[in-house]
Amino acid sequence: MTELSGASRPSIGDYLIRRIRETGCRHVFGVPGDYVLNFYAMLDRSPLRVINTCDEQGAGFAADAYARMQGFGVVCATYMVGGLKLLNTTAQAYAERSPVLVIAGAPGYRERERHPLLHHRDPATAFREIDRVIAEIVRTKRPGCIELPRDMVDMVPVGDLPSPVPVAAARDGRPADEVVERVAAVLDGAERPVIVAGVEVARFGLEPAVRELAARTGIPIVATFLGKSAVDETDPRYLGVYSGAVGDEAVREYVESSDCLLLLGVLLTDVNLGGNTAVLDPERMISLSAGGCSIGREACPVPGLELLPALARRSLRVHDRSTAPTPVRERTPAFAPTPARLTTERLVLALNAFVDETTVLIADVGDAVMMSMDVTTRAPGRFLCPVYYSSLGFAVPAAVGVQAARPDLRPLVLVGDGAFQMTGMEVSIAARYGMNPIVFVLNNAGFGTERPMIDGSFNDVAQWRYHLVPTLLGSGKGYLVTTEDELAAALAEARKSKELSVLEVVLAPDDISPQLRRLCRRLAEGVKR
Amino acid sequence: MTELSGASRPSIGDYLIRRIRETGCRHVFGVPGDYVLNFYAMLDRSPLRVINTCDEQGAGFAADAYARMQGFGVVCATYMVGGLKLLNTTAQAYAERSPVLVIAGAPGYRERERHPLLHHRDPATAFREIDRVIAEIVRTKRPGCIELPRDMVDMVPVGDLPSPVPVAAARDGRPADEVVERVAAVLDGAERPVIVAGVEVARFGLEPAVRELAARTGIPIVATFLGKSAVDETDPRYLGVYSGAVGDEAVREYVESSDCLLLLGVLLTDVNLGGNTAVLDPERMISLSAGGCSIGREACPVPGLELLPALARRSLRVHDRSTAPTPVRERTPAFAPTPARLTTERLVLALNAFVDETTVLIADVGDAVMMSMDVTTRAPGRFLCPVYYSSLGFAVPAAVGVQAARPDLRPLVLVGDGAFQMTGMEVSIAARYGMNPIVFVLNNAGFGTERPMIDGSFNDVAQWRYHLVPTLLGSGKGYLVTTEDELAAALAEARKSKELSVLEVVLAPDDISPQLRRLCRRLAEGVKR
Repeated sequence: MTELSGASRPSIGDYLIRRIRETGCRHVFGVPGDYVLNFYAMLDRSPLRVINTCDEQGAGFAADAYARMQGFGVVCATYMVGGLKLLNTTAQAYAERSPVLVIAGAPGYRERERHPLLHHRDPATAFREIDRVIAEIVRTKRPGCIELPRDMVDMVPVGDLPSPVPVAAARDGRPADEVVERVAAVLDGAERPVIVAGVEVARFGLEPAVRELAARTGIPIVATFLGKSAVDETDPRYLGVYSGAVGDEAVREYVESSDCLLLLGVLLTDVNLGGNTAVLDPERMISLSAGGCSIGREACPVPGLELLPALARRSLRVHDRSTAPTPVRERTPAFAPTPARLTTERLVLALNAFVDETTVLIADVGDAVMMSMDVTTRAPGRFLCPVYYSSLGFAVPAAVGVQAARPDLRPLVLVGDGAFQMTGMEVSIAARYGMNPIVFVLNNAGFGTERPMIDGSFNDVAQWRYHLVPTLLGSGKGYLVTTEDELAAALAEARKSKELSVLEVVLAPDDISPQLRRLCRRLAEGVKR
Repeated sequence: MTELSGASRPSIGDYLIRRIRETGCRHVFGVPGDYVLNFYAMLDRSPLRVINTCDEQGAGFAADAYARMQGFGVVCATYMVGGLKLLNTTAQAYAERSPVLVIAGAPGYRERERHPLLHHRDPATAFREIDRVIAEIVRTKRPGCIELPRDMVDMVPVGDLPSPVPVAAARDGRPADEVVERVAAVLDGAERPVIVAGVEVARFGLEPAVRELAARTGIPIVATFLGKSAVDETDPRYLGVYSGAVGDEAVREYVESSDCLLLLGVLLTDVNLGGNTAVLDPERMISLSAGGCSIGREACPVPGLELLPALARRSLRVHDRSTAPTPVRERTPAFAPTPARLTTERLVLALNAFVDETTVLIADVGDAVMMSMDVTTRAPGRFLCPVYYSSLGFAVPAAVGVQAARPDLRPLVLVGDGAFQMTGMEVSIAARYGMNPIVFVLNNAGFGTERPMIDGSFNDVAQWRYHLVPTLLGSGKGYLVTTEDELAAALAEARKSKELSVLEVVLAPDDISPQLRRLCRRLAEGVKR
């Protein structure tokens, strides 16, 4: 039991579990090992549910995706061999602001005879440290790590329990109010302002404030690529993804000719902004982010995103949207299958038609994400991809994390063959825990993203018959899809199925999306120069 | 072309490739990415052969195994997402002294406008740094890393090429000679000395010197677990693996009652020495290792392993070996298959009978390595396992590295189901490059090593039908083995096959080797205390 009841006192392990549960988190991802085995046994007895993945990498990605959906994710691994395998996934969580707690097992203090770290044996310190790390993860939406020596798991400290840590310090309102007024004045003075929504809008739960601001002022919204679906893509004021020269041309033109861009929670990074093809004039930008605030080239000393609710409620001029382009979703043609060989372009239309209110679209890096750019999700927070950090292999384990967090939703996974060979066998974890993602393996015989840059046999991948993966697992169903009709039939069956579905979609090696073709051209310039 | 011919001058990439080739290395393992793509294109045109793995983890393990077989291994990955995934495999290479060069791609200098690292733009520095890193890897048998900004790959520096770096500095002979005399005196005065051979004997190519020493003095040899096969296991003076209470009882008793243990290249670590069950009196130990030398409790300021050839050639007393136990290999019963259900104990006998002069036995962590302990290899350097660092998932990618280094040999891989789910799909890389390892997947439905410590559903793994892996790949053949007769039939067929063979060996979840049972008891004491 992890509950504190009356006079019973928690051990360090109990206390950690209790604090994790208080964040709303209900699952822990990981791979056990001897340095963390007794904590796993404690987790097994607790109300938290353990989800074992094939490899620590999969656990790290699953916890990251869980955190993006749920607000807090936990991954638990053993000393060294486990923890080191989590560095890449944790770097991604840091870069893309995903609130993940890493619990790393460790040798017991009594085993470390030469290094008696007496400081940490102070139990009040242990409890306070647990509180501090969890509060910082929640506050900053960045990962944090707790190392748990195995002989401390069951230790019941004496002395007073710490008082709760305040999650966020109170701020002085005056400079913030002043900045809100200045932002309002710039917006009111603009002729054609545009809201650019970034990923922090999703992380900090500010989607309603952004939509309220747009609704009250008539200002159109675009999303960065990493911020796709941070704002409901069916909002009437939402135009589509802005991603420099890589994205939709009408959206690009409108954004780049705007006299005032209001960036909300945007990370200014290369891939996020179309491989540095974005042409944005800092003079015409207002940026409110978790880390700061700027108006034109002037930085203001306040965390900008916190001003958003006040700005959304304030009286502001109503703008005319008549010059804005038709939203991308309204320009996307319907899909009527034919017997023809399937192409990337047609697949995008089929996906767009398939997505519904229960779909979470999860894209891996490569053309999988590029072809997702213009697929419209039907509710906020329903698109996941590490567009900025770009670690291949995120999507399949992310589906496990997503469906653990939201069993009422269904992941639709787009993953290239190269990325699938890294972590794709984590679909077996979905099968083990009764999840039913629909996984599209885009089989174009290699790293299609790299071929247009510099090609060689190093861009080929080994041959796998991906549609046989369910056969290997003895669970779910696989489909080999080469034509539009086969795709339609497989999708109809997958939609009804309660089990894992794996669709191996065979594409010509040179059939890449127009978005990817444009991005590759940009990246190749970087490689060659 | 990477050759320097007459007046043509090498680029930085050319120079790196040329230096790698001079170590005798012929392959580079890795996964490409945009920050390292132009170097991959250069590798593709060079005499070095690129082997693409499914994931960077697999490439790191393959390069480590290649280095263990060949003396130098190379893994090449892209910036961040690739490099960070290599931290765990590189930590293992460090811990177990495997000479691996990590090449990490990076943004070009011209892309890093805010950080013009002018120092590194000095081409003479680049060449000298390449020389220095490679020389240190060769000298210390530890991994090293070179970061390669993508705009430096094709850069042809001006100025003089550096003079070759001496690989090892000359040493003063006198203190060394004195230490040799002291060691000789202790050995000559001992009644029942034993040579304990460690992994460094293999890394530094000292196997002939160890055998010469044993042949001239009659002193019996045992190996540590990590040092298994460092000395030819068919040498008449070789008794078996010493691993504290975990290993063979007669060997343990003989070693622990010896009045003089000559440790040659031994890493004194926990798992290597039977989970700290080894009872060795430092007063009766002489240790000659790459890093130092000690006689009893006294440390001598010389790199001890370098003294070995002089010691082996010196006149020494001949010892009587009549009290030594019969070698483990001579006590191992033959295997005659029956229709009975296969057990771990009988599997060990079958493996022992199957191993021949061309076999490289590669064990993963867990019961796979425990049951390998008493299987006799037929030539030196034919056993690979990260016994000390113990990262699960080494064995299958290691087979790719081994067969790249030695296409004349055949890997026999023992891997548990849990470890196979981490990296086992790298068998597809073996298939892609025409390799034919024989892979035993020991299916006991979970982490059998952990069950005797603390059990719970967290020790279960997802269900895979491992014998269908070749079907998934469309290459090689799979076997489902539950009885001794099925094992014998599968082995006979696999031995003749030129293709990948995957044997799914079904074992009862509680059927673990006696060695593992003893080790788990030790480790569980650590978990619980």
